[in-house]
Amino acid sequence: MWTRATPFAPAGTKLDTEEGQRLTPTFDANGLIPAIAQDASSGEVLMLAWMNAEALARTIDTGEAWYWSRSRRKFWRKGESSGHVQQVVEISIDCDQDAILLKVQQTGPACHTSRRSCFYRSVRRADDGSLTLIFNGSSGA
Amino acid sequence: MWTRATPFAPAGTKLDTEEGQRLTPTFDANGLIPAIAQDASSGEVLMLAWMNAEALARTIDTGEAWYWSRSRRKFWRKGESSGHVQQVVEISIDCDQDAILLKVQQTGPACHTSRRSCFYRSVRRADDGSLTLIFNGSSGA
Repeated sequence: MWTRATPFAPAGTKLDTEEGQRLTPTFDANGLIPAIAQDASSGEVLMLAWMNAEALARTIDTGEAWYWSRSRRKFWRKGESSGHVQQVVEISIDCDQDAILLKVQQTGPACHTSRRSCFYRSVRRADDGSLTLIFNGSSGA
Repeated sequence: MWTRATPFAPAGTKLDTEEGQRLTPTFDANGLIPAIAQDASSGEVLMLAWMNAEALARTIDTGEAWYWSRSRRKFWRKGESSGHVQQVVEISIDCDQDAILLKVQQTGPACHTSRRSCFYRSVRRADDGSLTLIFNGSSGA
């Protein structure tokens, strides 16, 4: 049972936020912050998901990636049902402290479609301006 | 002057969205989708910003990264004032088509603080649970 109280202080000045050493994440109107998961070894971007304050705190405290599922409205320890857990190597935050970057050791595929990364299609634009999604051969599990 | 009408079809079934070749991005309640910019050469994650449908269309059509500035409430061609443009090498979309990944050739620093990446601080957790942000030496401009 995880019990820690939400530990994040409110943001200070713009200078504090950008150049300070205090973690003061800004959550959106729904209490969420986007979190990018990147493969710590290959650098591949695996997925983008959402955290609320407690999911971020759990991730920091446990060293495993926790998210908030917007569709299921519940905490979600990545891999809790699939076994495809993310061991967190590094947690970074951006200049204005409203986005998170996790470097992770990903067990198995990150995507629920069984692909290594969720970003398995890229946009191709034809000369007439029409758009098609092309599957990336390199993103297989 | 950029004039193209918003070109994106509405999402179809879950199967269409995840396994189809049609670009049907989902924008949030504010009409926005998060976009990750990643250095095409090094794999470094440079920033996370937001696009509305027209910013995404402009990015696809021009090959330069366009975003929507939430704070200034205007379109923002990355580098338009700083010269630090992003030439787009590849645009990917995730499984449920609600996040964008750009692989870019970044001219100069991506961050307005003159650092290469906006993710220049990582979270350090002391044994007593206290948190500090540590500046990454490797993220200098």
